Amino acid sequence: MHFGSDNESGASPRVLEALARANDGAESAYGDDAYTRRAVEALKDVFRCDLDAFFVSTGTAANGLALSCLVQPWQSILCHAQAHVLLDESTGPELFTGGARLLPISAGDGKLRPDHLARHFETAGSHPPHNPVAAALSVTQVSENGLVYTPEELAALCGEAHRRGLTVHMDGARFSNAVAALGCAPADISWKAGVDVLCLGASKNGALAAESVIFFKRDLAATFAHRRKRAGHLASKGRFLGAQFLGWLEGGHWLELARRANERAAELGKGLASLSGVRLAWPVQANEVFAVVPKGWAEEMRAAGAVFFDWYPDVLPPGPPLEKGETLVRFVASFSTEASSVQKFISRARGHPIP
Amino acid sequence: MHFGSDNESGASPRVLEALARANDGAESAYGDDAYTRRAVEALKDVFRCDLDAFFVSTGTAANGLALSCLVQPWQSILCHAQAHVLLDESTGPELFTGGARLLPISAGDGKLRPDHLARHFETAGSHPPHNPVAAALSVTQVSENGLVYTPEELAALCGEAHRRGLTVHMDGARFSNAVAALGCAPADISWKAGVDVLCLGASKNGALAAESVIFFKRDLAATFAHRRKRAGHLASKGRFLGAQFLGWLEGGHWLELARRANERAAELGKGLASLSGVRLAWPVQANEVFAVVPKGWAEEMRAAGAVFFDWYPDVLPPGPPLEKGETLVRFVASFSTEASSVQKFISRARGHPIP
Amino acid sequence: MHFGSDNESGASPRVLEALARANDGAESAYGDDAYTRRAVEALKDVFRCDLDAFFVSTGTAANGLALSCLVQPWQSILCHAQAHVLLDESTGPELFTGGARLLPISAGDGKLRPDHLARHFETAGSHPPHNPVAAALSVTQVSENGLVYTPEELAALCGEAHRRGLTVHMDGARFSNAVAALGCAPADISWKAGVDVLCLGASKNGALAAESVIFFKRDLAATFAHRRKRAGHLASKGRFLGAQFLGWLEGGHWLELARRANERAAELGKGLASLSGVRLAWPVQANEVFAVVPKGWAEEMRAAGAVFFDWYPDVLPPGPPLEKGETLVRFVASFSTEASSVQKFISRARGHPIP
Amino acid sequence: MHFGSDNESGASPRVLEALARANDGAESAYGDDAYTRRAVEALKDVFRCDLDAFFVSTGTAANGLALSCLVQPWQSILCHAQAHVLLDESTGPELFTGGARLLPISAGDGKLRPDHLARHFETAGSHPPHNPVAAALSVTQVSENGLVYTPEELAALCGEAHRRGLTVHMDGARFSNAVAALGCAPADISWKAGVDVLCLGASKNGALAAESVIFFKRDLAATFAHRRKRAGHLASKGRFLGAQFLGWLEGGHWLELARRANERAAELGKGLASLSGVRLAWPVQANEVFAVVPKGWAEEMRAAGAVFFDWYPDVLPPGPPLEKGETLVRFVASFSTEASSVQKFISRARGHPIP
Repeated sequence: MHFGSDNESGASPRVLEALARANDGAESAYGDDAYTRRAVEALKDVFRCDLDAFFVSTGTAANGLALSCLVQPWQSILCHAQAHVLLDESTGPELFTGGARLLPISAGDGKLRPDHLARHFETAGSHPPHNPVAAALSVTQVSENGLVYTPEELAALCGEAHRRGLTVHMDGARFSNAVAALGCAPADISWKAGVDVLCLGASKNGALAAESVIFFKRDLAATFAHRRKRAGHLASKGRFLGAQFLGWLEGGHWLELARRANERAAELGKGLASLSGVRLAWPVQANEVFAVVPKGWAEEMRAAGAVFFDWYPDVLPPGPPLEKGETLVRFVASFSTEASSVQKFISRARGHPIP
Repeated sequence: MHFGSDNESGASPRVLEALARANDGAESAYGDDAYTRRAVEALKDVFRCDLDAFFVSTGTAANGLALSCLVQPWQSILCHAQAHVLLDESTGPELFTGGARLLPISAGDGKLRPDHLARHFETAGSHPPHNPVAAALSVTQVSENGLVYTPEELAALCGEAHRRGLTVHMDGARFSNAVAALGCAPADISWKAGVDVLCLGASKNGALAAESVIFFKRDLAATFAHRRKRAGHLASKGRFLGAQFLGWLEGGHWLELARRANERAAELGKGLASLSGVRLAWPVQANEVFAVVPKGWAEEMRAAGAVFFDWYPDVLPPGPPLEKGETLVRFVASFSTEASSVQKFISRARGHPIP
Repeated sequence: MHFGSDNESGASPRVLEALARANDGAESAYGDDAYTRRAVEALKDVFRCDLDAFFVSTGTAANGLALSCLVQPWQSILCHAQAHVLLDESTGPELFTGGARLLPISAGDGKLRPDHLARHFETAGSHPPHNPVAAALSVTQVSENGLVYTPEELAALCGEAHRRGLTVHMDGARFSNAVAALGCAPADISWKAGVDVLCLGASKNGALAAESVIFFKRDLAATFAHRRKRAGHLASKGRFLGAQFLGWLEGGHWLELARRANERAAELGKGLASLSGVRLAWPVQANEVFAVVPKGWAEEMRAAGAVFFDWYPDVLPPGPPLEKGETLVRFVASFSTEASSVQKFISRARGHPIP
Repeated sequence: MHFGSDNESGASPRVLEALARANDGAESAYGDDAYTRRAVEALKDVFRCDLDAFFVSTGTAANGLALSCLVQPWQSILCHAQAHVLLDESTGPELFTGGARLLPISAGDGKLRPDHLARHFETAGSHPPHNPVAAALSVTQVSENGLVYTPEELAALCGEAHRRGLTVHMDGARFSNAVAALGCAPADISWKAGVDVLCLGASKNGALAAESVIFFKRDLAATFAHRRKRAGHLASKGRFLGAQFLGWLEGGHWLELARRANERAAELGKGLASLSGVRLAWPVQANEVFAVVPKGWAEEMRAAGAVFFDWYPDVLPPGPPLEKGETLVRFVASFSTEASSVQKFISRARGHPIP
């Protein structure tokens, strides 16, 4: 009954096997190896376009390094008020960008929309060098509340961003879950929709520690290698990052893993919605479930061995706030979540009378 | 015949097995897991003292983060003129420390000595806030030219550093090779000799990507967790860093791997020294061999499939410079270097008449 | 009819005279001079307490350097949504603090209140190292919309901040206008109310370029001298900063200048309020007037030679937004604003029929 | 007998008068004023070329901001081993550049020469992203030991720098003294010799606090305004910086001031050279005198009221080191140094038998 985070899972056996297969023999260090090169080619196949791609081991590094290629230290980055880059990565973006600023523009909504951008530019100061001026938009797919942006929504959002002179970064820590949910091509919710740089995360969905920064707008990549090395994110044995991606992408394994996670979350969401006193805060579209539950219920379920976290209350949609005694919690399913674990959780929950 | 870098090797099978064993089940994310905790305990056993330890995936991160705990942005760090932190980690130390400065003080010698410190303080400006004042010493074990500091040498150096008010950082990328070469206890060339913070590297010696930052002077660790997270070096699935260290340390495996590498380097050094026209630049004490060779010879050996790199010419000891037609090269042996590979190389070298 | 900014004025003749008087003879450089020392003593007299004080030449430097003494790079600073440090100083705070983050908490209100702090801590993530945690509060006196915090309001706000573990910074670019408006002692709205560090600005109120950073909580000043030098804000001929402050403070000249500015603003506010189609956005309490005016009127007045700026529309109090055709503008009076200039402006305004 | 620093002087009366003349009336803030514009035009006249120029109040700011326009944070800047930017400006260059590195290349010589560059590139690592690669050269005119680079020397040096792909920064804190000493046109030792960016300092030679950053290669100036604002170096009442430069440049006043300082230094040097037991370390070419003197003599002269500082001993030319009992000291003359003060000093010195 571990629903705390997809980071609590281990790795997919096929990724581990790919790692082991890459272990033999000598390979040039620092990313100049066959596995890294093949992984980049694999990404070109997946996205059906030319691109520049770099591998690092954490999502915070991927996001921070990517953003640092998009803005100057005196500019700002627009994002959702609950964006991971804003709330959960310390002041990493400031470190990587040399002090640029993140500005939340979402105003309580679940997804970013073009009118959020419009509203920002109506009120924000536009007089450099006094005012930090926005130069990039960061959008998260799957979104901060578990919703999936459609290709059309992204195209509208990125289109508006480009019209405003912004480049577009996508935090794709759960990009695979979005592709699996939409059943679309990876290109449809990335470069075809206007995403300039995608941080495609594998760690949360079956890898050990492997993230890629994919530049569809390739001239933005010019300084990436310098920035990555300088921040200590150039792996000496680069083959092991390449190998994880190879094993993960091969034969659509990444999407199979994502589908499994999404299915478990759907089951969990359905089960939770059927419980008296529990309500879903947002529709379940990928591998996360946000629910408003009685505090006492949460305590009892945790006492029974379930793991899930209280969540930022302002992730709730606009509307009636939490009632006294309620709390917002988040459940995450991963590729390794067992259907039986979900069933056990729901059946336990049914057996527990809501206080 | 791959002698380019110990980073060109894969991982020890026992480390890979430890990784696989750590894969099952759910574990808390971000380093709050059983494997990480056990790895810290294993380090306490190895060093026979209490300590704080943190894991990251690269040496540049380990060094930069460690140094950032020792100096303020307006201070300086003394080091050897060929220190890896100075020459080979981009301006990583500046990024991590917020702009502190590295100052080489070695003046052409192979190892740092107390009198290098004394000389620095005689001539350096000592008027803050105008002059950046030294607050830390960074020493590399195995040293920049493959020499091993003895416990006595380190004690004298660290003692002088402490008298000067400096804290001492050790870049231990090849610390295991030094322990294996000296046959001493790990404590003898770390905290007992006065090292305050040790970056103990496993990546070069059998791990996939795992480095530890070990604070013997524990109050220096107070801000480390913040700095690591902010720089994107807190692994989401921390278990995999802990597991690598567990597999690496268990039963003295790390020292067995280091001994193998040292033995191969010794054989290589002996073979090279026997070749006409080739001379060793420095005695072979660990797993690196620095040799002055004819340029034509180097080209021929590379054409025959050998991999080794030209090296910074100022690594040479004081004395006659390179003659025309000569070049300084570095060979590195790793745990996975085969004795047969060394033999093959030397026998090929014998068969090639020196031009 | 120059009401664009108090920065558009020159210096008070008495400050210029003090500068000239300080010109003779040799003085030690870099702030180690008699004028600087006497200016610090003058500040102790004015605030009737012991303190550490440093001089710099701009408000952005004063604020950024002061804040950098209060927070670590992974922490955040709470402030008003229209704070000058947030909107008008580029990303200076990020540069000076090494990447800490400013977080607006005011939610549309004119002044910061204790409940803004409470609300922040209810919803903000509190798990370091993931979440940047607030370590300081920055409050502006005179406030962002020209209102003056009373001693009681400040005491309540700073008290709540201290209970939350925050230190308190005051941006006192117009501190003198607040003291003049309240008729209180300078101590009443600084250290006695709980302000730990005050940036007391003289530039906007009669100096050429002189700001002081005053540490009432003196241990916070430990690193200031290093930070100031490093950022290029240690004046080589420090006497000229000290001399400006001496001339400015002597005999209460600073408050006399502030009273003049406040009086002109009061007259301007009264005149504007009497005009049909114009309404004051906020009461006039110091030397700034915020008014909602017809766009056409603003254009005509500017064509007639008046200087005043459009202002951030979200400075408006909660309530009905601007109507079509309206705009928010700011007028600022300084010590050198002539009463006749205000009269001329108002009389011109009366003569112009509102479109 | 104040020979400690040209910063110990006040301002030239003509500069003070220019300041007073600029005081009347309203002027736009933040550098958008008539005085600033006229000062830029005055610089174009002086240098007889088109250029971009910006004003700041300190030399550390001018140098750091200028350098930040020339290098990326992962690159390095070559300079003299005693460069002010290296030794006397804290880690300001690191702050302004975001962590680029200064590398001394002078190897004990008084002036930088093309072969210093050549030697650097022979031994320095040239593999980015691992090695920080040099992107700029910083040269100081008047040099670190009081010598003046001739137009030919500078042309050779800058030519070599450009061939190596470096841009050239000149720290011209005493540029006016060099022009006065050479009797050349300002262009001859700046853009005509290959200088891309000149920090022309007025503070040490008659201004209160005024430095200009002059971009002869104008595309390098693209980000300057952002960097200056962000670092708190955009003066709110910009007129006062412009006015200082206007008064300083007008009618060649700046060179008249410099000539006075140079003459006093020449007299001082001649007098010192005539003293038994005292020897000049370097020829006196501008307004500084470096001399090796008996420590006891220095103490006696200071006891008699003379002010001069011990200097970095490695400023000495290669050759015999200081003997026991000797010390290196620096004397600086400024525009306001009286000939009688020099005479008094030398006559006092004659009357003191050397111990």
